[in-house]
Formats: sequence, C-alpha cells, structure tokens
Amino acid sequence: MNAFLENIRARLAKHALCIGLDPEPNLFPDFIQAQEHPIFTFNQAIIDATHDLVCCYKPQIAHFSAVGAEDELEMTIDYLKEYYPDIPIILDAKRGDIGSTAEKYAIEAFGRYGADALTVNPYLGPDSIEPYLDYEDTGVFVLCHTSNPGAGTLQALIADGKPVYEHVVDMVLELDTDTPVGFVVGGTAPDIIAHVRKIAPESLLLIPGVGTQGGDFNTCREAGGKNAIINVSRAILYTSQGKEFAKKAREVAQSFK
Amino acid sequence: MNAFLENIRARLAKHALCIGLDPEPNLFPDFIQAQEHPIFTFNQAIIDATHDLVCCYKPQIAHFSAVGAEDELEMTIDYLKEYYPDIPIILDAKRGDIGSTAEKYAIEAFGRYGADALTVNPYLGPDSIEPYLDYEDTGVFVLCHTSNPGAGTLQALIADGKPVYEHVVDMVLELDTDTPVGFVVGGTAPDIIAHVRKIAPESLLLIPGVGTQGGDFNTCREAGGKNAIINVSRAILYTSQGKEFAKKAREVAQSFK
Repeated sequence: MNAFLENIRARLAKHALCIGLDPEPNLFPDFIQAQEHPIFTFNQAIIDATHDLVCCYKPQIAHFSAVGAEDELEMTIDYLKEYYPDIPIILDAKRGDIGSTAEKYAIEAFGRYGADALTVNPYLGPDSIEPYLDYEDTGVFVLCHTSNPGAGTLQALIADGKPVYEHVVDMVLELDTDTPVGFVVGGTAPDIIAHVRKIAPESLLLIPGVGTQGGDFNTCREAGGKNAIINVSRAILYTSQGKEFAKKAREVAQSFK
Repeated sequence: MNAFLENIRARLAKHALCIGLDPEPNLFPDFIQAQEHPIFTFNQAIIDATHDLVCCYKPQIAHFSAVGAEDELEMTIDYLKEYYPDIPIILDAKRGDIGSTAEKYAIEAFGRYGADALTVNPYLGPDSIEPYLDYEDTGVFVLCHTSNPGAGTLQALIADGKPVYEHVVDMVLELDTDTPVGFVVGGTAPDIIAHVRKIAPESLLLIPGVGTQGGDFNTCREAGGKNAIINVSRAILYTSQGKEFAKKAREVAQSFK
C-alpha cells in the first residue's frame, strides 16, 4: 500500500487534527524572534508540544517564501522526518500549471522538500494534476470547495446540473492512478463537506477553515467521517506570545478532539 | 498612471513578444552548466541577446524552485531591473489561496522578488485576488482559459449560459481597483482569445502556448489585438546547445514579429 495512505490512515484512527504550520514571525514570542532560525525554532517547539495529538502537519509554503525562508521549510520537514517519521507532512502550496511546469512543482514538493502530500489547484484540468501522481508513496489533495468567503463565486456555479466543485470530484475520481488523491473542502460549509463525502465515500478530505476562519471542529468531523483531516492553524499557533507559547498551543490542540 | 501599465503599453507599441524564462539546466550548453550560477548566466545571455525584441520577460518560478535556485531568480530580476529598467517582469507563479495567504504570496512576488506583475489562479474567487491589488505600480494576470489539452474540462463548462472562463472575466471586471488586471488566455485556442478580447476590450491579455505547445504567433496577435502579450519560452530558449545559443535564440525571437 502507498506509504502516505497507510500512515495517514493509521494516525486518523487516533486523531483527526492536522496542525497547519503557517509561521508569522511578527506573532512569535520575542525570544523566538531573536533566534538565528526563528521560523524553524518556532515550528520545532510547536511540533514537540503537539506531535502526539495530530494525524499530520501541513506547512503552508507562502509563509516561508514571503520571507525567503526556504531553508527553514527544509529544516522543519527534515526535523519531522528525523524525529517523527510516522507523521505525514502535507505541503500546502496549491500548485496549478500545465503538465511540463507541474512536473517542476512536483520535483519541488516531493524531491526537494520531501513532502508526503501536496495540495493542488484543479482549474487547469486533469493533465495539470497527472504529473503529481508519478511519485511513489505520496498523495495529492485537490482543491474542491474552499473555506474563504468568495469560494462559491466559481466553485458553486451550476453546470450540467451540478456545481463546479462536484465536477472537480468527478474529474479526480476518473484519474487512472493508484496515488491517493483527496479533496480540500473548507470547514466553513459543513453541508458541502457532507455532500462531497457522499459522492466520494472513500477519499481523504482535508478540511481547513476551522478555528480563526469560523469552522467548527466537531461539526466538520461528523460531516467528513473517519477519512477527514481537520486542519487548524492560527487558532493553535498564536494562543500566546509568552515563554510558554508551545504549552498553550498544546492545550488548545487538546481541545480539538 | 500605473507604472507597469505605462511601461508595458509603451513596449507593446513596438513588440508583442514576451520571452518566458523557463530554465531547464539539462538543456543548457555544457559551458553554461559548468558555471557557478548556471541559471542566472543562461538567463543573462538570453536577456542580453533579446532585450530589444521583447515587450517583457516572464520568469516561471517552478523552474527555479524545483532546483532550489531562488537566489538565481532574484539575480535574474535584479539584473533586468539594473540594465533594462523599462522592461516589465511578469512573475509566472499562478498563485491562488485564501486572502491571508494571498497576502504572503503578494509579498513574495512584489516585495521579495520585485516583480512588476504576477499570474494568479481565480478558482478561490475574488477575495483571493484582492490582496495582489494593494501594491502600487504592479499588475496581475488572472488565468482565464489556459493553453494545455485539459484546459476545457472545468474552464469551458457552461453555467448560466456561458463558460466558466467567461465568469472569470466578469468576476475580474467587477473588482474595484485601479490595478491593471489582465487575463491569461492560451494561444492554442485563438477563437477563445478573440472572444475574451470582445468581452474585455481594454484588458491586457497574456497569451502563452505559442511555439512548442503549437499556438501560432501571428494568429494570436490578430485575435488579441494591440494589448496582447504573446509569450514564447522553449521554442526560443532551447534552439541550440552550442556556444552561440544566445545568438540562435535571438534569430528565433526575431522571427516572431
């Protein structure tokens, strides 16, 4: 079996929570900001404090690339692989481009960074997703219906009697692949989670938008079922700017059960 | 007037050609591959050989990030800004994420790299585009109908009597902004270019897919009109692996008139 799928299923049996690593250096405690590698040091503390509470971690790449901290993303992933090798890492990059360029993004995610799974954007169609399926033991999550206020503008348009996001599900389920391809479905619309779960009963669902964006953990878990990964980022990471920020993050993470 | 718009219009009066900088180190001549900064050295040679033939350059970011060459992307953009400050730089990254993350991608593109314009993906809706509009003197190109074989799977679905890509045009034209927001329309479907030009008569169009992907330069130019930027990448960059690769690239670039 695909190693990513095996690992995430084993962890999902115990924890639905995924912690999104969205480093915002200006929200770090002062003593972390003063470190040589503040982003990595912050992530390391969060990981050490929460590793037994999560099914996976999801570093969001823009938070690293905005400040030129690709090295700290590498350090974060390397740290996870060395100390917590059973915890899958979903790189949240929402890539989407023509096939020949998608091949490069796949190298970036799975080769350079060694992520176990990657989020991708479906707008360019099936051939823009296929290059990510050529790797062993990795997974892909395709944006289906997102958590932001404007999600429905295109995603909920009705074509041929069903919303565009449902066409995304159909398109993905028709891919000829053994790679697990799940869906990103925002936690702010639990009815849509339930609908996607109905039309894709076995697929992994990655559900962001819980916590700061307003989605409710338990409601999403109920709608998404046992293969639902519920992501919380800011509501856990930035609970405190004090010395004990990681302990406080753990306390909040424990509340998402 | 917005400096990006002013610069690109001035250059479009003379040249429709944009050269896409899609570095593929294994296609470089051996003596370039042996350099300390092969990607930058290659780009520099192409730029020096073609700067008087183009309206702009379009570095494609995956080709840098796949090999951890963010520094060479910075060097390429810095070189353009120092020696050819009138030539706009479109960073091709096709970013698309919720507002708070889009803010980070905007910092990456306009702050860190100093790009003049950025390509973005519309799938998440208008609030995922708005953060890119908060910068002065820059522009945005929203994916509308792309150049790849599977483009139509979602983009051409008919909702409310018109294709999804036309809903993208409507969505963008409704944005309340002074920032120039153009469209990416693939050169492999000239009838769609003509249609987008009709419904967005003043917008900048960025037209990739010409050359290796099969689109025809003059057909695209006719369909797109005076505000059409026609991108060619591989067909110019990898004409020769000999000592005179840049001269050969210039000769091919000259053929796109």
